[in-house]
Amino acid sequence: MNKRVITLGEIMMRLSTPGHERFVSSNQYNIVYGGAEANVGISLANWGVSTAHVTAFPNNDIGKAALQYLRYAGLDTQYVFFEEGRMGLYFVENGAMQRSSKIIYDRFDSVFANFDGASIDWKKVFEGADWFHWTGITPAISASAAKICEAAVDAASELGVKISGDINYRRNLWQYGKQPLDIMPGLIGKTNLIIAGLTDFENCMDIHESDYVAACKKAQETCPSIEYVSTTHRKSISASHNGLSGVLWNGQELLESKSYDMTHIVDRVGGGDAYMAGLIYGLLTGDDQEALEFAVAASVLKHSIPGDANFVSVDEVAQLVKGENVGKLLR
Amino acid sequence: MNKRVITLGEIMMRLSTPGHERFVSSNQYNIVYGGAEANVGISLANWGVSTAHVTAFPNNDIGKAALQYLRYAGLDTQYVFFEEGRMGLYFVENGAMQRSSKIIYDRFDSVFANFDGASIDWKKVFEGADWFHWTGITPAISASAAKICEAAVDAASELGVKISGDINYRRNLWQYGKQPLDIMPGLIGKTNLIIAGLTDFENCMDIHESDYVAACKKAQETCPSIEYVSTTHRKSISASHNGLSGVLWNGQELLESKSYDMTHIVDRVGGGDAYMAGLIYGLLTGDDQEALEFAVAASVLKHSIPGDANFVSVDEVAQLVKGENVGKLLR
Amino acid sequence: MNKRVITLGEIMMRLSTPGHERFVSSNQYNIVYGGAEANVGISLANWGVSTAHVTAFPNNDIGKAALQYLRYAGLDTQYVFFEEGRMGLYFVENGAMQRSSKIIYDRFDSVFANFDGASIDWKKVFEGADWFHWTGITPAISASAAKICEAAVDAASELGVKISGDINYRRNLWQYGKQPLDIMPGLIGKTNLIIAGLTDFENCMDIHESDYVAACKKAQETCPSIEYVSTTHRKSISASHNGLSGVLWNGQELLESKSYDMTHIVDRVGGGDAYMAGLIYGLLTGDDQEALEFAVAASVLKHSIPGDANFVSVDEVAQLVKGENVGKLLR
Amino acid sequence: MNKRVITLGEIMMRLSTPGHERFVSSNQYNIVYGGAEANVGISLANWGVSTAHVTAFPNNDIGKAALQYLRYAGLDTQYVFFEEGRMGLYFVENGAMQRSSKIIYDRFDSVFANFDGASIDWKKVFEGADWFHWTGITPAISASAAKICEAAVDAASELGVKISGDINYRRNLWQYGKQPLDIMPGLIGKTNLIIAGLTDFENCMDIHESDYVAACKKAQETCPSIEYVSTTHRKSISASHNGLSGVLWNGQELLESKSYDMTHIVDRVGGGDAYMAGLIYGLLTGDDQEALEFAVAASVLKHSIPGDANFVSVDEVAQLVKGENVGKLLR
Amino acid sequence: MNKRVITLGEIMMRLSTPGHERFVSSNQYNIVYGGAEANVGISLANWGVSTAHVTAFPNNDIGKAALQYLRYAGLDTQYVFFEEGRMGLYFVENGAMQRSSKIIYDRFDSVFANFDGASIDWKKVFEGADWFHWTGITPAISASAAKICEAAVDAASELGVKISGDINYRRNLWQYGKQPLDIMPGLIGKTNLIIAGLTDFENCMDIHESDYVAACKKAQETCPSIEYVSTTHRKSISASHNGLSGVLWNGQELLESKSYDMTHIVDRVGGGDAYMAGLIYGLLTGDDQEALEFAVAASVLKHSIPGDANFVSVDEVAQLVKGENVGKLLR
Amino acid sequence: MNKRVITLGEIMMRLSTPGHERFVSSNQYNIVYGGAEANVGISLANWGVSTAHVTAFPNNDIGKAALQYLRYAGLDTQYVFFEEGRMGLYFVENGAMQRSSKIIYDRFDSVFANFDGASIDWKKVFEGADWFHWTGITPAISASAAKICEAAVDAASELGVKISGDINYRRNLWQYGKQPLDIMPGLIGKTNLIIAGLTDFENCMDIHESDYVAACKKAQETCPSIEYVSTTHRKSISASHNGLSGVLWNGQELLESKSYDMTHIVDRVGGGDAYMAGLIYGLLTGDDQEALEFAVAASVLKHSIPGDANFVSVDEVAQLVKGENVGKLLR
Repeated sequence: MNKRVITLGEIMMRLSTPGHERFVSSNQYNIVYGGAEANVGISLANWGVSTAHVTAFPNNDIGKAALQYLRYAGLDTQYVFFEEGRMGLYFVENGAMQRSSKIIYDRFDSVFANFDGASIDWKKVFEGADWFHWTGITPAISASAAKICEAAVDAASELGVKISGDINYRRNLWQYGKQPLDIMPGLIGKTNLIIAGLTDFENCMDIHESDYVAACKKAQETCPSIEYVSTTHRKSISASHNGLSGVLWNGQELLESKSYDMTHIVDRVGGGDAYMAGLIYGLLTGDDQEALEFAVAASVLKHSIPGDANFVSVDEVAQLVKGENVGKLLR
Repeated sequence: MNKRVITLGEIMMRLSTPGHERFVSSNQYNIVYGGAEANVGISLANWGVSTAHVTAFPNNDIGKAALQYLRYAGLDTQYVFFEEGRMGLYFVENGAMQRSSKIIYDRFDSVFANFDGASIDWKKVFEGADWFHWTGITPAISASAAKICEAAVDAASELGVKISGDINYRRNLWQYGKQPLDIMPGLIGKTNLIIAGLTDFENCMDIHESDYVAACKKAQETCPSIEYVSTTHRKSISASHNGLSGVLWNGQELLESKSYDMTHIVDRVGGGDAYMAGLIYGLLTGDDQEALEFAVAASVLKHSIPGDANFVSVDEVAQLVKGENVGKLLR
Repeated sequence: MNKRVITLGEIMMRLSTPGHERFVSSNQYNIVYGGAEANVGISLANWGVSTAHVTAFPNNDIGKAALQYLRYAGLDTQYVFFEEGRMGLYFVENGAMQRSSKIIYDRFDSVFANFDGASIDWKKVFEGADWFHWTGITPAISASAAKICEAAVDAASELGVKISGDINYRRNLWQYGKQPLDIMPGLIGKTNLIIAGLTDFENCMDIHESDYVAACKKAQETCPSIEYVSTTHRKSISASHNGLSGVLWNGQELLESKSYDMTHIVDRVGGGDAYMAGLIYGLLTGDDQEALEFAVAASVLKHSIPGDANFVSVDEVAQLVKGENVGKLLR
Repeated sequence: MNKRVITLGEIMMRLSTPGHERFVSSNQYNIVYGGAEANVGISLANWGVSTAHVTAFPNNDIGKAALQYLRYAGLDTQYVFFEEGRMGLYFVENGAMQRSSKIIYDRFDSVFANFDGASIDWKKVFEGADWFHWTGITPAISASAAKICEAAVDAASELGVKISGDINYRRNLWQYGKQPLDIMPGLIGKTNLIIAGLTDFENCMDIHESDYVAACKKAQETCPSIEYVSTTHRKSISASHNGLSGVLWNGQELLESKSYDMTHIVDRVGGGDAYMAGLIYGLLTGDDQEALEFAVAASVLKHSIPGDANFVSVDEVAQLVKGENVGKLLR
Repeated sequence: MNKRVITLGEIMMRLSTPGHERFVSSNQYNIVYGGAEANVGISLANWGVSTAHVTAFPNNDIGKAALQYLRYAGLDTQYVFFEEGRMGLYFVENGAMQRSSKIIYDRFDSVFANFDGASIDWKKVFEGADWFHWTGITPAISASAAKICEAAVDAASELGVKISGDINYRRNLWQYGKQPLDIMPGLIGKTNLIIAGLTDFENCMDIHESDYVAACKKAQETCPSIEYVSTTHRKSISASHNGLSGVLWNGQELLESKSYDMTHIVDRVGGGDAYMAGLIYGLLTGDDQEALEFAVAASVLKHSIPGDANFVSVDEVAQLVKGENVGKLLR
Repeated sequence: MNKRVITLGEIMMRLSTPGHERFVSSNQYNIVYGGAEANVGISLANWGVSTAHVTAFPNNDIGKAALQYLRYAGLDTQYVFFEEGRMGLYFVENGAMQRSSKIIYDRFDSVFANFDGASIDWKKVFEGADWFHWTGITPAISASAAKICEAAVDAASELGVKISGDINYRRNLWQYGKQPLDIMPGLIGKTNLIIAGLTDFENCMDIHESDYVAACKKAQETCPSIEYVSTTHRKSISASHNGLSGVLWNGQELLESKSYDMTHIVDRVGGGDAYMAGLIYGLLTGDDQEALEFAVAASVLKHSIPGDANFVSVDEVAQLVKGENVGKLLR
């Protein structure tokens, strides 16, 4: 695929207890590195899209380990900046049955939160780029992170790069003095595809609708840049068993995807990012319904893979969409 | 919670094959320490109840490792006695699908079985105690263990400490010359809450009824100390999928709990002890129906956790009772 | 059981990623050794049948490790021949949910493929043997392997040893110049029990029927040696959830087994070999319907065990057939 | 031993790469919890001294896991305070041969650094205490930590509790505005035993001497509370091979210990804390030379044990001092 | 090699903490199975000697796992008897540097200790045997074990089978009422090769000499069956660094072996058994000095291998004797 | 560093037994990917040199895993070609003490051996390149590999790119019909720096000298392109303890490096490649003696790191050269 995508955002070290061990009973953590935006980028890179991630890492061996992870995962790392500071962390405990999965964040005051981005030349970053992806986590982290996000969105918009934003409102963030409504509308106003649920609409766009289509329409009225709005529907029967489907508003109709029954979930963290990546890939390559189906199928497969990153191929996703080779033994 | 509970019983080293490995194909064992009564104590300690466990360990590094485990798990270990001898063991093979789980015991002639308990000052042990818990395993182990159990029950009864007993009849034990009916009625006669199924009634109380309520009533007639009788109902669809509910006879009616569908079971060993602990906690803090629901929900969560011990919080149990945050991803 | 079985075929090193890790994200492989025929032999050896496997291993430490594995698994290894060469390999990635399991073979030019078998004295091998088992994989590997298989079938047939063959047509093999129809009919023509599905009939016997019984009848017409034809029916809901049953044509009627719902599958590789072994064991000890039920139950249990080998006892299989002790906690 | 010791200080999660893996090549960390002062406390607790550690943990599951570790290690945890915040971390890469071991700290802005200590009732903490131990790390962390340390030293001093301080000057700390000379002299002025090398004297006491005895004497002149001064001498041949000995100035003479050749070092982190603990234990139980020898031997044994904590018994240390059972196979 | 050796003795499950973890800090054990005599047998089997081991295992899955281990290790297991009972255990903690290794036994009342041996037909066992090996551990375990050992020695002696005995006096055993001097002289009186140090001579033969040759001569006087006496000299610099050599008295002179410097010891358990096996192998194939050198070199290599069993080839031992390929990288 | 290096050669999957386990006793392999030339490239990439490796991988998930490893390790992978075929393997058993390390190769008929290289545009590959590195392994693998190597050397030579060759004569290779002397002289004749010992001179250049300088001079006479000749001197005391130094002939004098004593070796595989990389780096940045010292120090550090790749920084090597921070604990 001859496309170029840029993603921006914090990457944290993810420390997961093995198997179904609880935090209090584990003396070992498995390590990968993840972040909502980089997870999207890794999916795209695995699908053959040239993808560069823009972020900041601590200039020590932990930062170097994270860099090596990104390269292993296929990302172009030329826009990783090394600065004094600490890497943000999140601890993951994998639930089972009725017991929930848990994430504990330790991300405040991280190297990314303190990164001023002065060294980023956005013109250069977006050279040859077709798409830029950001999420609502970045402007929620710190004033400087919000500024970097704004600069990126501004530059992309100016250069005619398509923009997607996963609104992803997180109440626990936004602790640096600003409120979502201070910043998010400005970003969304230049974005073409957003992932948003009703809560996101309320908190980040001041749109209070109980009907999804109504909310989508109002969002487009407010922000004419928006071409697509999408969200997933997750039905949590237990930590091990979920249902999943997605909807995509394309300005004219609300497309609905097939619905999947996910028993025996291995790891659901990163499932939303896999969906986002699938949507971007799908819209870069196919029609709206195909994009939506690709997104949901990609997300389903993510739930079968340990870690944040969705190491699946385009073929695997495409086959699941078609219902071929599902859960077989392939020799 | 300002309550004090005392538990008494043997603790064994548990050696589990990793994952779903069979005994014959594993060259590694995971180690924890467990016992029916200590498992109850650990649950209570995790829920903020001050709980001391009375037992005997070998005075070597294995005994020391077991002691450190109990402390880690939150128990007050001042009544752990160190003696010459060996630690009992049990080997656990975790089943899956239609394949059963297996436990092989190697507990005969253990340091606890040979412990004469002469050094236990029960008056001191029960100082400030609200509850004492024993199980039918202790009197089944050896003549001296039966004596210790009797001494404990006598002292608790005399001091007005509430007493619970999990009848837990095990045909493979009782090899030292006495029969359950020689000993159990005496213990049950001073106990206030018993866990017993129809088989337990038959073997340990000589009560032969096919109706559970009838059995409960007869038990109360024989042993007026009994205020509560309870048992769980388990439906084994497979080693990985069970149904679970509980009933509680409070002298007036047979309360029934919600029924849970437990797919994707991680480890069912200790599920009964988690229920017992839940019942004690519930009766110390709430009404009968609440206690029963707390007990079943606690037991359900135990099935999602590797090892014997139920490392869950009061909040987690309470939320499951209310159907909140079940199987979600909590950030 | 006072029976003697001989199995023949290539054994490969199996390298499996741990848990549900994908090939690209694992830096560790778990190692066992397996092959369709040896898997059958290991099942039988575990069930008390004296079983020798005939194969060739590289004369280095890898070959020695494989030999030690076969001994551990209970096989008589006196007919393992050590030659210069490499051991064939297969890499296994265990699927989950909708994600398929994957096998990558690296078996070309192996020590077995190049083994000329000149040193095998088939008369001696079949001394006291009651049964010989081969599969369609062996003649598919190389011209010399096909010759060895023919020599074995000829000798067994001549000596009155019962013969079973798992047709097991694999399109990816058969790369040495011969086609299945050049060789398979000759082998099948001396075989008494075959495992074959419709595709196998087409490719290896030139029988084109859409009805299974019709195919079985035509097979018996062509090859009067055939007494039994059997196959399994697998319903793949997902990689973690399959249905399984089997049918056995005994020349008169098509017996059908109970059908099993296998949720929470641990490892399905070797499931067919477990079925084959169950059929051989069942026919050596019981009537046709019993043999069929034993075979399916053995295969079901295999799905709960990591690795190719079905380390279950006759009792465990028999209890599953009877629906006893299914998925319980056995103390 | 009927003694009571109080230790104060930050405890961090220690994340170590397994074996000799480098940070960049490990995807797994082994977890323990350590801190200079708690390490001392754990040693003492293992030697039968009742030891309570005063610290603050985050009020989440990570804090709970740390608490359970302290209990497992034998500490009295009644003075662990739970607050909002993050746990400090340090990453450990174990060197070998000429390659150095590495520690990366991520401890800024931790729950302990931000802890105001208002809830500590030092009178109550020191009830029945014989000894209080602090290190120069605590006042280097933050203004509030320095205040807590001063309050503790003041209270201990007032109540006649013996005080030890490991000066342990760390250039990378002291980032909150104060300099060591602003604070350390006040603390040392009430301390009875200090561990200090020439660099410590310079930075924390403004004593500039090239002769150790001269420095000790000057320290005692400045701070008459000081009864003992000690330090270790380490000879680093490689990461795997060090020499170790210690000296103890008791106001009259400089005692020197035996010197040990430590080949095959397993983990040197915590070696200094093991020495400190040995000195406290030795001075509580024996004469000066015995205390010094006990301290060095304890430190040597620490180098053979993975993790920060020195899980050795008094007997094991005592035997090494006497040269008995050194490196044998004890049955 | 066309020789047949029979070994007799208890086999225990060995549970080792991984790496250099202490008992108190490990939650995992690595499992192998070992015993002084079986260790000798496994060495011989690896060197191409047909070797059968006579023992008793519990008739459960633990016994089956042990059986599979013996087969894996190359032993003929037709004389393994399955009885009700428990398997003996020993826990191993691997020392390092000055810290000693530790073994904790839990072997009393094991299935072997209680085995009456009535089902052993010694005539059949010794059919075609060239050598029988026993150790002083067997008669020390129980009265019945002593009887079995006597029956074996008697039968072997009668049938002209060469006999070796590793005297191996263990003070902690001999708890069933008999003293070594009640039993050992009778066994030694029919033995041709003994491994004995001065302590063994004293306790098991009542020979009190400070000179080794004098002791050997007196042993031969008392027991004219003795042709060879041997022992190893071990110099323990640390748990990680030993020196090793051996001596062999052949009735005429005291042969001395080369001396080896063993730095970086991996696992010394089983080192003596490797020596014993080397001596048997050497005397079956070469002259006295060659046998002695083979024995010491075999023992040295054992120290580099985890577990009790000495998985080395004849070539590897022979090359070490010659000083070839020592510590190289062999491609 | 603003330099560009190209390396060419086969990369294999390396399967290592954990710790010091032998092949026969391990059921797990640790996986990395390595090859003599890629190992050199990875070192250089870690030191900031832009390095691309030219090779062929199988176009399946194993090849993809290998690709991701190379990216993780820092290589530019744009010249990795994906073809049908198998990946070569090598199994590594890590020795200890007197027991040698072992490598078993399984590399014949690999995708690289069969790669015709037609798709390589060497002009493009060498664009901007300063250095090209090859080894004597490539022409030894197959006729096509030899052709690729010749094409690369020709192109580099023509384009004025500096060329280094590690002669690395391996008797076990060269099985495709050609002899070293048929091919190597042609390659060496265009090479500027060679690593060669006396055996290499004999087998690959037909130079038979017992004096190293004499051999170097003769090599230069025969091949005037040669500017530098170098080799290491390794003294194998045991598998755990080696001495190492190097020499460099620069056409005028034989420079000698410091000699290092390497006790506690972790993994010596790749030590020679680390030296080669050090020499290239050193000659690109410093004078001859500095380059030699850098090379030896880099190689020494490699021995402390598991796997083939030398993940050390320029600083770490430089400090070892200067004797700074050797074997310390760096905080």
